[in-house]
Amino acid sequence: MEKLIQQRDLNQFVYSVFIAMGCSDVHARQATKTLLDADLRGIDSHGVARLSGYVRLWEVNRINAKPTIHIVHQTPSTAVVDGDSGLGLVVAPYAMSVAVEKAKHVGTGWVSVCNSNHFGIAASHAMIALQEDMIGIVMTNASALVAPTFSKERMLGTNPICVAVPAGEEPPFIADLATTTAANGKLEILQRKGADAPLGWMQDQEGLPIQNAHALKTGGALLPLGGDREHGSHKGYALGAIVDIFSGVLSGANFGPWVPPFPAYVPMPEDQPGKGIGHFFGAMRIDAFRTSDAFKKDMDLWIRRFRAAAPIDPIQQVLIPGDPERDCQADREKNGIPIVGAVWTDLLSIAQKFNIKL
Amino acid sequence: MEKLIQQRDLNQFVYSVFIAMGCSDVHARQATKTLLDADLRGIDSHGVARLSGYVRLWEVNRINAKPTIHIVHQTPSTAVVDGDSGLGLVVAPYAMSVAVEKAKHVGTGWVSVCNSNHFGIAASHAMIALQEDMIGIVMTNASALVAPTFSKERMLGTNPICVAVPAGEEPPFIADLATTTAANGKLEILQRKGADAPLGWMQDQEGLPIQNAHALKTGGALLPLGGDREHGSHKGYALGAIVDIFSGVLSGANFGPWVPPFPAYVPMPEDQPGKGIGHFFGAMRIDAFRTSDAFKKDMDLWIRRFRAAAPIDPIQQVLIPGDPERDCQADREKNGIPIVGAVWTDLLSIAQKFNIKL
Repeated sequence: MEKLIQQRDLNQFVYSVFIAMGCSDVHARQATKTLLDADLRGIDSHGVARLSGYVRLWEVNRINAKPTIHIVHQTPSTAVVDGDSGLGLVVAPYAMSVAVEKAKHVGTGWVSVCNSNHFGIAASHAMIALQEDMIGIVMTNASALVAPTFSKERMLGTNPICVAVPAGEEPPFIADLATTTAANGKLEILQRKGADAPLGWMQDQEGLPIQNAHALKTGGALLPLGGDREHGSHKGYALGAIVDIFSGVLSGANFGPWVPPFPAYVPMPEDQPGKGIGHFFGAMRIDAFRTSDAFKKDMDLWIRRFRAAAPIDPIQQVLIPGDPERDCQADREKNGIPIVGAVWTDLLSIAQKFNIKL
Repeated sequence: MEKLIQQRDLNQFVYSVFIAMGCSDVHARQATKTLLDADLRGIDSHGVARLSGYVRLWEVNRINAKPTIHIVHQTPSTAVVDGDSGLGLVVAPYAMSVAVEKAKHVGTGWVSVCNSNHFGIAASHAMIALQEDMIGIVMTNASALVAPTFSKERMLGTNPICVAVPAGEEPPFIADLATTTAANGKLEILQRKGADAPLGWMQDQEGLPIQNAHALKTGGALLPLGGDREHGSHKGYALGAIVDIFSGVLSGANFGPWVPPFPAYVPMPEDQPGKGIGHFFGAMRIDAFRTSDAFKKDMDLWIRRFRAAAPIDPIQQVLIPGDPERDCQADREKNGIPIVGAVWTDLLSIAQKFNIKL
């Protein structure tokens, strides 16, 4: 049974949970904003549906509610940030703000992060750059669910790439994509419906195509964007690998099959080479390349020309990356956020655990 | 009929052609190296097969053999370079060297380029960064052959992304990928064989699936990586769009459907908003993040672990991006470069035009 909850009420509840975990007021506000950005934008798999997961990680001491997030190395345009096992939901905005500050001084800023945790949706962090007239770039690695081309072993996370670009009169361009055929959240929707997944999304433990949406539970793997070799899965694998290297290897975090799992009950991989999960952030000042006015005029032209591209079906025009999420946000800010039954039950049990009103 | 030609002989011939076009000695050497990097690495569609195309663009004054390539705007970590309509084959190494110099000073360098032409293979330029212990990043837009998700109109080029990462004892990681299901060069191979393309590579002028490898000649389009919406084509479209924005909009070059075509006989698009083709280059100094030793040790571990990932078929282990091209290069440096009959005829007619021995 679905429940509709207003943004303000959900915000208050989530904030109270983070405070109850011991987060500072500033961190609790940041974490709440990041988490709710997912629910508002319609990425339900990355919003309050994950709140109980964060709580469990905190309970087993894999998340530090009072981290000292700090820069361990830097140059004028780069930094490595150690998240001190904090919530990725607060480590990421910190790292992005470092990138933005560097960009103010030398044109661009690039920050690789180790010792972090799941950071919610990438777009929430990339959009920080938009407010400063900068392009925002965000990546993160994640625990291994994806098999490289030719392999039956899970070696990469769904490793998303987000790029947010400001425009003038048009809304910003915001691409936020897992480097797999389908994000894990899409699978969860099918699981709830009891529906099969399309061919090309997953393989079974032997590396054969499988459509059972629960196949990850029996040793199956998600497939890199492209699906199979003939359709370019080696490209999706390469993109996921780039995200892993920029996030994990460049920062000293874990990478590949060693990235810590999100579920607290899954044991940590052995012989981990690094610290926690890794992220990567970039900020590029527009006027480090062209005047902001000239750039935005051309971005408006870009967006309008692509919207006007001849459609295959007249009722479905070409979308600009970020369109569906913006439409969803406008609707949910006005009408409330739908919470599916299982997630509502989850939130109620968190409310009970911390004695918070929901 | 295929012809086998030694690298040294092909090098001498191509250099002489660029000299005959009026290029300086330095530019002719650079252009020759870039072009032959494609043939050596097995990207035959981007090597001497395109030499006659460059000659024809020069003949119609769309390529300037004596360009004054220059920086038009810069900050400590960024620059916009105007290629002065020069060969992309020489504009690109110049722009990459600017990125590398900036990285030496402030950790990273980022260069967006306008007023350029086709630059050969992206990997040739990204690999320049490897020699300096830097990560190299290269993108370029190209004339429109790709339809965005939901459209039947060609709006984007095959817009490649290349990332080259140095390792320690292992060879470097070099991913160089068109943001389409299949690069145009793959289609050309099928055309020569008279074979059909797999479903998911192309659509016809109405936006319906088509397998005829010649479909681009009758208004068809290549498909973004992912192939169709259900398999993530909106992600391939977004990636191609990011390349277009970084290369074209950020530099003041053309973008989207306005990017100049490579064949000299195809008329230029009307109302072009910018100058020439656009590229984007990045260089990130490894030790701007971690010590080079620590990073390379982890990259070696990354590469070895991925090579050792459980294969689906024991005779085909997991490849590291760059493996097939490096194997090809070793073979062709030793045994010569195979040139297909049509390309050989093309080279002979260039030899005749400029009265150069082949």
